[in-house]
Amino acid sequence: MLVVGIEPGTATTGYGFIRETSQGELEAVDFGVILTRPGQPAENRLQEIYQKLKELLFFHQPESGAVEKLFFQKNVTSAIAVGQARGVVLLALAEAGLRVSEYTPMEVKQAIAGYGGADKNQVQQMVRAILNLPDIPRPDDAADALAVAICHLHSRRFTSLNEQNGD
Amino acid sequence: MLVVGIEPGTATTGYGFIRETSQGELEAVDFGVILTRPGQPAENRLQEIYQKLKELLFFHQPESGAVEKLFFQKNVTSAIAVGQARGVVLLALAEAGLRVSEYTPMEVKQAIAGYGGADKNQVQQMVRAILNLPDIPRPDDAADALAVAICHLHSRRFTSLNEQNGD
Repeated sequence: MLVVGIEPGTATTGYGFIRETSQGELEAVDFGVILTRPGQPAENRLQEIYQKLKELLFFHQPESGAVEKLFFQKNVTSAIAVGQARGVVLLALAEAGLRVSEYTPMEVKQAIAGYGGADKNQVQQMVRAILNLPDIPRPDDAADALAVAICHLHSRRFTSLNEQNGD
Repeated sequence: MLVVGIEPGTATTGYGFIRETSQGELEAVDFGVILTRPGQPAENRLQEIYQKLKELLFFHQPESGAVEKLFFQKNVTSAIAVGQARGVVLLALAEAGLRVSEYTPMEVKQAIAGYGGADKNQVQQMVRAILNLPDIPRPDDAADALAVAICHLHSRRFTSLNEQNGD
């Protein structure tokens, strides 16, 4: 099973595609960031995010997607900017026929590091270890996207265990 | 010249297409709202907004578009939700090859009613009068979208006068 995690932002949108093997191991298939040029109109930056993400989704054909739920932002202006990027990311996922799951930052930390209060560096070290990568994935937005994808796979595994148990 | 004004929202996105005749009169070509069904996942509601707006843009072929600049929202969660809708609206405009202008609520009121402190009802009455409509356009989001489109046409007229004067 292949899933994609995404960390939306107007300037930098992180993505991480992770496959769960039949042995239950997780491997990073692709990760990185979509960068948009500053100084361009917002609509053109959003278009770049949308089109590049669509290409990635077309290329990798994941089965489902996950993004972080956002509650806190520095201020309302930045919340709207992140919201706009998030809007085109959700649209690209829907246009690719994917269902999207959302996880709070605490759920992501919990899934990766075992407790919701883990700091950024702990989460990144765990992402590296879980995916058996030689180094911490860079840049940060790509690592965040991989963390969301791992959380999503854990959550799906948990759900399917529950379903098997008839809960 | 035909322009479109848009008032984005997850549940209700208002739109208004206005033509400026060669005599300088403004006429409402089409206005209304795109409604999305509550209880659906956000990505599907965004997809509905995007697809319906694309159809409208394809049908009317406006030359440019305008949306309100957003500064204040009740809270950050609603700012993200509005931002998401705004993101797919900006994307649809960019995909239709349109340049997008943004105006503050005060600029819109100033352009419509002559002063930035005008209340909602005054603005709606003026929109009705400017467009020579029998009644106030309904619902509110459609009236708001028409107001942004009128502001955009006024602003373009002003800019082109300045350009003619070599300013």
